[in-house]
Amino acid sequence: MKIESVDFFYLKMPVVEDIGDGSQDAVLVRVRAGGLEGWGECEAAPLPTIAAYVCPMSHSACKPVRASVEGMLLNEPSDIEKISRKVRENSFDLLQADHTLSGIDIALWDVMGKRLEQPVFELLGYKKAFPKLPYASQLFGDTPEQTYEKACESKQSGHRAVKFGWGPIGRGTAKEDAVHFRAARAGLGNDHHLMIDIGTCWVENVSAASERLKVLKEVNAYWLEEPFINMALGAYRQLSAEDPRVSLAAGEGCHNYAQAEAMIGHAGLSFIQIDTGRIGGITQAKRVADLAVSRKITYVNHTFTSHLALSASLQPFAGIKNDFICEYPVEPSPLALDITRDHIPVEQTGEVWVPERPGLGMEVNTGLLSKYLVDMEIYVNKQKIYTTPAF
Amino acid sequence: MKIESVDFFYLKMPVVEDIGDGSQDAVLVRVRAGGLEGWGECEAAPLPTIAAYVCPMSHSACKPVRASVEGMLLNEPSDIEKISRKVRENSFDLLQADHTLSGIDIALWDVMGKRLEQPVFELLGYKKAFPKLPYASQLFGDTPEQTYEKACESKQSGHRAVKFGWGPIGRGTAKEDAVHFRAARAGLGNDHHLMIDIGTCWVENVSAASERLKVLKEVNAYWLEEPFINMALGAYRQLSAEDPRVSLAAGEGCHNYAQAEAMIGHAGLSFIQIDTGRIGGITQAKRVADLAVSRKITYVNHTFTSHLALSASLQPFAGIKNDFICEYPVEPSPLALDITRDHIPVEQTGEVWVPERPGLGMEVNTGLLSKYLVDMEIYVNKQKIYTTPAF
Repeated sequence: MKIESVDFFYLKMPVVEDIGDGSQDAVLVRVRAGGLEGWGECEAAPLPTIAAYVCPMSHSACKPVRASVEGMLLNEPSDIEKISRKVRENSFDLLQADHTLSGIDIALWDVMGKRLEQPVFELLGYKKAFPKLPYASQLFGDTPEQTYEKACESKQSGHRAVKFGWGPIGRGTAKEDAVHFRAARAGLGNDHHLMIDIGTCWVENVSAASERLKVLKEVNAYWLEEPFINMALGAYRQLSAEDPRVSLAAGEGCHNYAQAEAMIGHAGLSFIQIDTGRIGGITQAKRVADLAVSRKITYVNHTFTSHLALSASLQPFAGIKNDFICEYPVEPSPLALDITRDHIPVEQTGEVWVPERPGLGMEVNTGLLSKYLVDMEIYVNKQKIYTTPAF
Repeated sequence: MKIESVDFFYLKMPVVEDIGDGSQDAVLVRVRAGGLEGWGECEAAPLPTIAAYVCPMSHSACKPVRASVEGMLLNEPSDIEKISRKVRENSFDLLQADHTLSGIDIALWDVMGKRLEQPVFELLGYKKAFPKLPYASQLFGDTPEQTYEKACESKQSGHRAVKFGWGPIGRGTAKEDAVHFRAARAGLGNDHHLMIDIGTCWVENVSAASERLKVLKEVNAYWLEEPFINMALGAYRQLSAEDPRVSLAAGEGCHNYAQAEAMIGHAGLSFIQIDTGRIGGITQAKRVADLAVSRKITYVNHTFTSHLALSASLQPFAGIKNDFICEYPVEPSPLALDITRDHIPVEQTGEVWVPERPGLGMEVNTGLLSKYLVDMEIYVNKQKIYTTPAF
């Protein structure tokens, strides 16, 4: 079959707030081929991502992503890899291209799975999927009391792993942060995994991180996430070698395989966190998962949006039993929930399973989405090069 | 003074061809502050770059670049650094933001220099500028005979350093490439520097590079540029340790300081090539130049477009005497030449000097540019969020 059409949809909540909630808007991608329809999602700024698909060519290595996609053959999984390579070759000077490719690649795997009547993880070579332990991601409270209460609530709601991040942490003194860390542990009790996410707040400042290691060890932090910006290899490596040692997690900012490989090779990480909606889709994420296995580093998805994105992000490591932790969006916006008819539930065991249905196993709820659809038009020299498509 | 306005102009040649010439279009940035005007250029795909400036906010770390720029104070050089930091904090999930910031940062330095009546390199802390030896960049011929003739012509035109790249190289056998390498050296004679640019053609394939090392050594290649994709640290490192050893050059794809630091630290490079129009502007490029000095690696600009971009790209290492090589666009498009009234000439000595005039020392030739101006409009929910400004 051939790729017949690729359509981009920009969806958003009526009000987008200045808060750390990435589920307030979405870029959905619909690919049609051989009478089938596949869906993907870019974890990306919608307008620049769509612009990277439709923009005029600048030169031979700065072409719009569409130049490498439309009309391409799509008969077997290796055809998806070919498209991924072609995008890199044709668009390597177009920075946003990796985010644009991500949603397309995911949609291509969805179509391929429907065509071959297999879930994507099987097409990736996994014989079976293993359950994952979802961790609930939430903001620190503004006060230690609030952090404590949030931790108590998380415990009561049945989560066995909880991540706290952002909010006041990393912006005040180490002592102030310590009170929050202890409050989170006190609320959760000792049987739960507690992760701490700094959100790149310390940039490359190793000593800001160092002076918090002792209390992080004391509260038995399962990992310390993104103390530094993506690719700050030296700072990560230095922190990873300090005593006491706290396991480091990072990687969500990687937008290609080479960057993830660099982080795995040189940052002293224990966990590599990959967003399938940024790294170039399932094709590149699977390469990272394979590399992580060979380097004995744990692969974890980064997912903060819809259950379409969640299914896509679980596929690349679905068959790796040891990589048992997964990120699970616990407070998605109504938009993010409405994107799919199906949802991936947290089972009574506290675990989640990747869908066993063909492709990503998720039905996109187009009937519900019109109210979120952003009407967008782009004209270049009076010619309309993008207009919002119909569902 | 305050930043009063930031305007983006998309310019292009009447016909953009599918060739490796990045000067066929341009993104110019005009910043107005305190009654002054500064200009910068992004080395980037115009539409996505402009989209990253004007797009709606997605969440607190995925804001349009404009959110960190408009209305900001601009009284001293450290204010430019503040803006750079703010863009990283506010837009770190917006991939294209670094390319957008690049042109803005360059324009801010231009304004600052005009305000303080100093050339940018002095504001960066250099007491004086040193001359640079420009190398002429050109494509390999389709046949070895053509490569030989091009090399002879380059020699006759007075260039003391010449780079050949792209074209058929790296796509056929090692033997075929060897004939081209020898033809280039034969045409140039032995007194000229000869650089070879692979244009990332081998991706991460070390053996494709290895089998050409002997002949590269034989023709005394000054450097081997981008045998692999940006950030393929392992492949670069491995190649750098092989015998015979050929100096490696790379880095033009780095879009932030951390990536350049990773390349300097782990790729075994002898030359780090930075495009000021991609890495976040002069602010970030200067940080890389400082790091390169401390690591005893040679900094070289990557510049393939206008003399505005050339001036901006020379400033960050203007005062480093040892870093004496510079890239110089020898076959820019008419558009690229028309962007500035002033041009940076190759002196009789074969050298070029960064302008000593305030700011970047280049006057933008707005009168000539209207014919290249692309008329662009972007609407989001019927609201016009971008329209081509007037010069």
